[in-house]
Amino acid sequence: MVNDILLPLAPKGLTEVINTCGCGSSANENAYKVAFLHFQAKKRGKNPPTQQEIESALLNQAPGAPELAIVSFRRAFHGRMIASLSTTRSKALHKVGVPSFDWPIAPFPEIKYPYSDNISYNQAQEAQALEELEKIFKTYNKPIAGVIIEPIMGEGGDLCASPSFYLGIQEIAKRNDALFIVDEVQTGGGSTGKFWGHEWWGPRADPDIVTFAKKLQVSGLFMKPELRPARSNAISMYWMGDPARLLTLKAFKNVLETDGLVKKMDLTGKYLKNSLIKISEKYPIISNVRGQGTLQAFDLPNPELAAEFMKMLFSTGVTSGLCGERSIRIRPTLIFTPKHADVYLARVEHLASKAYAQHSKLVLS
Amino acid sequence: MVNDILLPLAPKGLTEVINTCGCGSSANENAYKVAFLHFQAKKRGKNPPTQQEIESALLNQAPGAPELAIVSFRRAFHGRMIASLSTTRSKALHKVGVPSFDWPIAPFPEIKYPYSDNISYNQAQEAQALEELEKIFKTYNKPIAGVIIEPIMGEGGDLCASPSFYLGIQEIAKRNDALFIVDEVQTGGGSTGKFWGHEWWGPRADPDIVTFAKKLQVSGLFMKPELRPARSNAISMYWMGDPARLLTLKAFKNVLETDGLVKKMDLTGKYLKNSLIKISEKYPIISNVRGQGTLQAFDLPNPELAAEFMKMLFSTGVTSGLCGERSIRIRPTLIFTPKHADVYLARVEHLASKAYAQHSKLVLS
Repeated sequence: MVNDILLPLAPKGLTEVINTCGCGSSANENAYKVAFLHFQAKKRGKNPPTQQEIESALLNQAPGAPELAIVSFRRAFHGRMIASLSTTRSKALHKVGVPSFDWPIAPFPEIKYPYSDNISYNQAQEAQALEELEKIFKTYNKPIAGVIIEPIMGEGGDLCASPSFYLGIQEIAKRNDALFIVDEVQTGGGSTGKFWGHEWWGPRADPDIVTFAKKLQVSGLFMKPELRPARSNAISMYWMGDPARLLTLKAFKNVLETDGLVKKMDLTGKYLKNSLIKISEKYPIISNVRGQGTLQAFDLPNPELAAEFMKMLFSTGVTSGLCGERSIRIRPTLIFTPKHADVYLARVEHLASKAYAQHSKLVLS
Repeated sequence: MVNDILLPLAPKGLTEVINTCGCGSSANENAYKVAFLHFQAKKRGKNPPTQQEIESALLNQAPGAPELAIVSFRRAFHGRMIASLSTTRSKALHKVGVPSFDWPIAPFPEIKYPYSDNISYNQAQEAQALEELEKIFKTYNKPIAGVIIEPIMGEGGDLCASPSFYLGIQEIAKRNDALFIVDEVQTGGGSTGKFWGHEWWGPRADPDIVTFAKKLQVSGLFMKPELRPARSNAISMYWMGDPARLLTLKAFKNVLETDGLVKKMDLTGKYLKNSLIKISEKYPIISNVRGQGTLQAFDLPNPELAAEFMKMLFSTGVTSGLCGERSIRIRPTLIFTPKHADVYLARVEHLASKAYAQHSKLVLS
């Protein structure tokens, strides 16, 4: 079933799959384990672990338990299990009080949206962030086995940069012998207008590992075949396969393909984005419209107004989510069309006009 | 559904439930998070986290990411996610190459089975192990927020000690302000002859947290109500509830109750154990028969013979598992009765007689 249902969805070149339990957190933690084992295997050459490694591992000590790191980005969300929480940077509330691996944090560029209206500013921000990432590789006090990033940072505020930024990360990771891990837990499955969010980076996109969950019904990761650990059972999960969920994935895929939903997400997303931009131009209480496909978000001037706006939207029958510090994100289902978008947009426009009339000073100041 | 289906299964006093994803590893990691948050909350009194805690948490640094530990036992298996792997001690293969929290390891008593034939030796072993645990609390270089143990160490070799040993751990944990966490991922659900394995410890058993997965169809933990974090969303899971799996749990419970399977597991288990002991007395190539309910295991003289014996059993149509270094464990389903046990026992006896004839020198030496 894994071969028939799951593997055909693999991103180009990632022909191995590890199928975990159901949550994105376990998918990412397995990606980290793959990165760590691969790093150690390269170091060791063809040799098996030494006696010293075996004995120290059971005592949670180096060299068996090596000092290695995963680098993640400011505002990233990669799950809430304890090690994945060490790479999550979106909300302190998720982290306070939980012990953490001392892993480094890279800056994410402070993009102004719409991207194309602020190109040179945004490119400078991206160049600086990449420079900082490079610096972390040079100066961090332990080897870095992998870099992880979401194509769109969901929980962190629906932030996304240009394809060249992500390709820049990829280049730095590869040059520094670290795996490039793309967390597609939220972006995988079609809502960006491509099946995988990283497909928007173009033909040069070449992640070593892509993790998934949510829309894919099961969770896990796709990886390059050379990353398979030499020792069988070095990575293994009790839920390997999870046939009942694979069958729901099969049904999901059928509908996705038969109804051409991925392409429709692209078209609906473009319509949604352009319409939101128009609203934000008319009532600039809404700003920073951004996203890919129907994964769209916009900002309000401050956290309080964002919460209030979401509440007002809810009172008109629209469920949406807060993310980042002052953003509202839209997560329609895959059968959302421009007809539905119009209902949504009319309500947003109505509320934006009201809020703008009331708070325009905030925007003009 | 959680209220109707899951909560009625709660061990005495553990009236709160966190329902995770499906795997035991995530159940245990959430138990550790509860222990850490509780430890920090006690330290902080009624105050919310400080600004310094909030800022340092996002950087993976103390005090927001505190230096706290969970202590586990030699040969324990608590899962393979990265933090739960720091408490797993059964096989180096599971750990080598993966970074680890520097958490301490307590010795597990080296019991001789059957327990009742070696009482004074076993009690001395248990007393010594408890003394060592106490010493870890006194000397470890960071605070210990919790102690975790399985009622029967499955992966580690189906090892179990006397109720007073587990009650001793409980007493030491409570005296040292650490939570007593019982990992019932393998033992929960009836196969020990009680619904929860720790019920065998008698009325003084008082775990703070009991984790579950496998037979319970969903995974998660039961805990005392005072352990609920003050901040809502401090612990939260995407899969909260998982209604489809809760329905399979409902069906499972119905059969369990209607057919009186837990009691039957006790009776069948006793029959199985007594019969295996008789075989081991006749053909002492088999030794150390042990277990609770139908969770039974026995040893062969060395790992090679254990692997060979398992293979021979398989060739007669019996699937079993290796555990520990030289043990074979039996994991029949909950509808296993003495009638089925007889089929199994006849094959074990036949093979034991053959193996004993061939290798009796090994036993006598």
